[in-house]
Amino acid sequence: MLSEFKRGCSSLFILSALVANAAAADTRREIRFPDIPGYKTIVADFHTHTVFSDGLVWPTVRMDEAWREGIDAIAVTDHIEYQPHKKYVSDDHNASYEVALPTAQRKNIMLIKGTEITRDTPPGHFNAVFISDVDPIDTPKFLEAVEAAIDQGGFVFWNHPGWQGPKKGSWKRVHDRLHKKKWLGGIEVLNAENYYPEAHQWCLDKGLAMLGNSDFHAPSMRHHTVTGDHRALTLVFVKEFTQDGVKEALNDARTAAWGQDRMIGRKEHLGPLFDASIQVFPAHFEDRNNLWVEIENSSHLTYKLKRTGDKGPGTITINADARVIVRVENVSGNGDITLEYEAENVLIAPGEAMPVTLTIPR
Amino acid sequence: MLSEFKRGCSSLFILSALVANAAAADTRREIRFPDIPGYKTIVADFHTHTVFSDGLVWPTVRMDEAWREGIDAIAVTDHIEYQPHKKYVSDDHNASYEVALPTAQRKNIMLIKGTEITRDTPPGHFNAVFISDVDPIDTPKFLEAVEAAIDQGGFVFWNHPGWQGPKKGSWKRVHDRLHKKKWLGGIEVLNAENYYPEAHQWCLDKGLAMLGNSDFHAPSMRHHTVTGDHRALTLVFVKEFTQDGVKEALNDARTAAWGQDRMIGRKEHLGPLFDASIQVFPAHFEDRNNLWVEIENSSHLTYKLKRTGDKGPGTITINADARVIVRVENVSGNGDITLEYEAENVLIAPGEAMPVTLTIPR
Amino acid sequence: MLSEFKRGCSSLFILSALVANAAAADTRREIRFPDIPGYKTIVADFHTHTVFSDGLVWPTVRMDEAWREGIDAIAVTDHIEYQPHKKYVSDDHNASYEVALPTAQRKNIMLIKGTEITRDTPPGHFNAVFISDVDPIDTPKFLEAVEAAIDQGGFVFWNHPGWQGPKKGSWKRVHDRLHKKKWLGGIEVLNAENYYPEAHQWCLDKGLAMLGNSDFHAPSMRHHTVTGDHRALTLVFVKEFTQDGVKEALNDARTAAWGQDRMIGRKEHLGPLFDASIQVFPAHFEDRNNLWVEIENSSHLTYKLKRTGDKGPGTITINADARVIVRVENVSGNGDITLEYEAENVLIAPGEAMPVTLTIPR
Amino acid sequence: MLSEFKRGCSSLFILSALVANAAAADTRREIRFPDIPGYKTIVADFHTHTVFSDGLVWPTVRMDEAWREGIDAIAVTDHIEYQPHKKYVSDDHNASYEVALPTAQRKNIMLIKGTEITRDTPPGHFNAVFISDVDPIDTPKFLEAVEAAIDQGGFVFWNHPGWQGPKKGSWKRVHDRLHKKKWLGGIEVLNAENYYPEAHQWCLDKGLAMLGNSDFHAPSMRHHTVTGDHRALTLVFVKEFTQDGVKEALNDARTAAWGQDRMIGRKEHLGPLFDASIQVFPAHFEDRNNLWVEIENSSHLTYKLKRTGDKGPGTITINADARVIVRVENVSGNGDITLEYEAENVLIAPGEAMPVTLTIPR
Repeated sequence: MLSEFKRGCSSLFILSALVANAAAADTRREIRFPDIPGYKTIVADFHTHTVFSDGLVWPTVRMDEAWREGIDAIAVTDHIEYQPHKKYVSDDHNASYEVALPTAQRKNIMLIKGTEITRDTPPGHFNAVFISDVDPIDTPKFLEAVEAAIDQGGFVFWNHPGWQGPKKGSWKRVHDRLHKKKWLGGIEVLNAENYYPEAHQWCLDKGLAMLGNSDFHAPSMRHHTVTGDHRALTLVFVKEFTQDGVKEALNDARTAAWGQDRMIGRKEHLGPLFDASIQVFPAHFEDRNNLWVEIENSSHLTYKLKRTGDKGPGTITINADARVIVRVENVSGNGDITLEYEAENVLIAPGEAMPVTLTIPR
Repeated sequence: MLSEFKRGCSSLFILSALVANAAAADTRREIRFPDIPGYKTIVADFHTHTVFSDGLVWPTVRMDEAWREGIDAIAVTDHIEYQPHKKYVSDDHNASYEVALPTAQRKNIMLIKGTEITRDTPPGHFNAVFISDVDPIDTPKFLEAVEAAIDQGGFVFWNHPGWQGPKKGSWKRVHDRLHKKKWLGGIEVLNAENYYPEAHQWCLDKGLAMLGNSDFHAPSMRHHTVTGDHRALTLVFVKEFTQDGVKEALNDARTAAWGQDRMIGRKEHLGPLFDASIQVFPAHFEDRNNLWVEIENSSHLTYKLKRTGDKGPGTITINADARVIVRVENVSGNGDITLEYEAENVLIAPGEAMPVTLTIPR
Repeated sequence: MLSEFKRGCSSLFILSALVANAAAADTRREIRFPDIPGYKTIVADFHTHTVFSDGLVWPTVRMDEAWREGIDAIAVTDHIEYQPHKKYVSDDHNASYEVALPTAQRKNIMLIKGTEITRDTPPGHFNAVFISDVDPIDTPKFLEAVEAAIDQGGFVFWNHPGWQGPKKGSWKRVHDRLHKKKWLGGIEVLNAENYYPEAHQWCLDKGLAMLGNSDFHAPSMRHHTVTGDHRALTLVFVKEFTQDGVKEALNDARTAAWGQDRMIGRKEHLGPLFDASIQVFPAHFEDRNNLWVEIENSSHLTYKLKRTGDKGPGTITINADARVIVRVENVSGNGDITLEYEAENVLIAPGEAMPVTLTIPR
Repeated sequence: MLSEFKRGCSSLFILSALVANAAAADTRREIRFPDIPGYKTIVADFHTHTVFSDGLVWPTVRMDEAWREGIDAIAVTDHIEYQPHKKYVSDDHNASYEVALPTAQRKNIMLIKGTEITRDTPPGHFNAVFISDVDPIDTPKFLEAVEAAIDQGGFVFWNHPGWQGPKKGSWKRVHDRLHKKKWLGGIEVLNAENYYPEAHQWCLDKGLAMLGNSDFHAPSMRHHTVTGDHRALTLVFVKEFTQDGVKEALNDARTAAWGQDRMIGRKEHLGPLFDASIQVFPAHFEDRNNLWVEIENSSHLTYKLKRTGDKGPGTITINADARVIVRVENVSGNGDITLEYEAENVLIAPGEAMPVTLTIPR
């Protein structure tokens, strides 16, 4: 009741117009990524914590944050085995979901039920999402815990594989077992600010979903989501935006991980995403040797391009949700002009930038 | 222990990209206003200065600024009679246009040739735009100067009518003469931070175009255009985006003036603009007495709504380029739900907020 | 050619550090207010909530926030009677203090033990701070609860007196009783964004401390404290910065409430604070009729001055932590020049701006 | 009361204090660097352009910018030989100084008369500052031009030595001749975003002043100066802040160049600057094995420290104008505790970080 009152009064004098608009607790700015042929692009965070394990916020805060940051789907995944607040906070494993749900419904956020299975490395930490009840997963033997999640129709992925060093966090026999049983659906290639190239390769080799998640414990202090400063997120390319639709996309590894100004994924998804995001306009001005074209990026990822072909400037930065003008020299002939580049911040394999083509219509 | 780990990872580079992206000189962020039925919506500034009169920048700077701020068309309108830099800078009245043009072409900005006819009040200051040669307009008699502009096909408007006080800046016999000769096409209802309600009424009474212009003398320090902090601008509703198209729209008074978080204009344009900007989604959640709906504003103007009907919250702020969730109480029946409001920051006459309707589809 | 080169060098990373630096969780930016003669100026928030009542954060978060926002002392004041999280969170009234204390010690924040006594209006809500044990205060009769706090050496103040409307929130017989017993030490004249002018007058009339507090329930999203965008805060003018020193200052009503760009208090404190904050330099330039002087504001409050005397500009804004140049016209004679103003945003009584003098040394 | 509340709500769309205050043309925020023993620290930009050569602003704009960015002294150094605006703008070499001077006086900015001698590389471009008349310097032979500047008491430095590549920009016989004649007083080790390590070494070897300058052609878009985003600047350690005092310091090579978050100079100046900037407080909390201390940085440079000794965290970032808390492990004994680090972003020679000591008083 008091907090209801406070909510009514909230955020009057916050920062500038720039920030103020975004800052209002009731304001959401969408994350802009276009759909790709055959799939709708949605944005999710499958790894967050609350006071019910070692997080520092009430579960509803995670819904408020997701709303204002433009996130479509979120999982609250409190640790089963690690509950440092237990002296004061209930150890009911299903509580954080129950508490968050009414807010998720009012905020129109898809809340995915989940938990974190937290074991010494190896095997390491795993998240189970799309589960129905955490209690059966609270069992001492690791493989039995995973099986309990799978039995509920859950999707299980390996969290931050490298966080205790590349040696401890490497692919071990237990991961082989999970993989052979088809219990391991994906791996975090991004966790918070950390990218794990080995995990990127494992996902490519074994057909696993790549995930990027915030693993938030503290409150999020972002008003909305922007390139180069945002929580780590997973793009999911869904047939339909339902709980089943998201799970089907994860099981089919139709995901990409977005971290700061970097996108990690597969060429089959990120190529179409680039093409849907970038519009090259016809030249608006020409002189004897040069032409000038505008290029628009309607996505939330700033693209940093490096020339691989023989035409166009050496580098082009096309900022998120913005336009750039490019001067192209030594153009001749009448057909469309094709500029060959690679997107240095779009990795389709460890160390491998995605090749892209800019076609100037004539 | 995990939260310890997370704390160690806390990012030093939070929030930087937001500003960094916008700062790049080569980056443009579009001003977003949707088209309205029958017309394309473009954004223009018809009043700026350079070193060729009393401005402080080289003419090309005005093109660079327009580009990065998302402006479509701009006039450089140096004073004919007031040239304090004459000791050092050419008094060639056509120079600022000539200097600016090559940059305008490369930046894809529509550069409109113009000048400011600067006389004591009354009559006051007037801009002539869409002219071809400033020299014939440099003539001592005021009406002859205006006639010279009209003879070139120019569009003439009255600048900042109230800037020397409401008495000096009032509608006088000379303005009647201009109006009767059909030489006066419009009036600045906004100049920089100043709104002139009397001018708003004169435009309504006499069928004149309402203009909002920056009257910039110093460099613009904005990286891009946002609600609540932007130069004063004119929205023009054009049949086609050409010099003739913009002039035709001015002559037909199809304009609105946008100042900070306020829009000044006519209901026939601002009503359709609201409807094109605002999307009300079907309720995403309902309980026994309430429903929750998302409303999206795809324009660059934050709308501040105040209830005039019997349903919906007392006020709704729908931030620019953002979504809000509204809870509607005491809903019954099955048909679409209609909420009656007025947009307090959209003035369709002095002191008159525009009535709007939000329809929740069911 | 050279300018072409420079253009090529233009930085993509402009303006990022401003925000990035502030964002680091481990960084604190001090709130700058100078000491005044006889007293050290410290900044406190005596009203915040956590998950242990209806707040949304773990108690340690309030310490992290206070650290990075430059706050010196803070009280966590969870409701005794209103505990909507009780199903999941302990109702131990002393828990939020216990949980917060180790973080407060490591962050060098003075944590003041407190609680909120939450009764229907009248009497309304009251905070008791500098108490040792909340349990004895959890008693049904209101006056007994207050007495229990007083018995512990607590300082009791009335929260947001107007929040349920001016009628319900007015000074009633129960407040007279508290006052006569010397149990009421102060009143919130500011709570979050709300200023209560009646409460300001009551404090003046009855010699009570004026408080400004955040009443935070949600996470704070501010990186540091700035004029015009900060949580409501109380300036306390202490003889020594200890728990006893702060309490002594409260009991002596040596406080002011700082809300957005407004300071509410008494002339005896805010006059010296102005004088300690503002430095007027000797004129750095003169011509026949004018002189130019720099004025520096070394405090965190932007001063908005309006001329009441016969010299100086009509208004002067001296931004927080910044300098302004003022031109003074028609100066004659040789002695110091005295400019008479009032600080429009420093209220020493409801509707009464504080008179100030700017003395230009010659 | 309700209307009081509404009024409280009304300013949602005012610009923030942060942006609005900084944006006011009349506001200056000082660049904070402490003085060092024996010398006052001032901040200067010795290289800027205006419309009188290939710059894009009227000379007064450079004064306005310097004022609001907190700069103490500035030179306008238009090219003698390169004047692309000559068709429209006077080629009077002394004009930009004359135009700028009255504004400099009113803004209390020290305006240093200068010019750029612009020759093909080698020798390259040179600035002459503290001159009295540019005309005699406009002479075809390079050495005669330099001599004319020296004859006026000018200080001559080499601009951006590497901007046409390391080979063209290397130290040649002509530079030896200048050096032997004692005509070359310094070199830009920083120009805009570019750092020239070779030039850093030349300055160390030959006892020359190191300069960091903006070389601005376009308008500055910064509201004030911050770490990590500011124009390149020169710190000058002066005996007195007069034109002669600044020149004496340049001739004695008592300078450092500040670029983004990097400081380039000599240990004899940057060591004392660090010590004057950084305050280590006594431990505010200890447990059996650890102590916690606050460290304050009262300068405008963020220090990035890397441990070289055996105590303290591996890295410490002490943000500009901010505090950090450091936990030190395994402390024993009673005396002061000494932590050995190097400041990675303070270069006292190419590739050589400055060693620093943090002493925790006990």
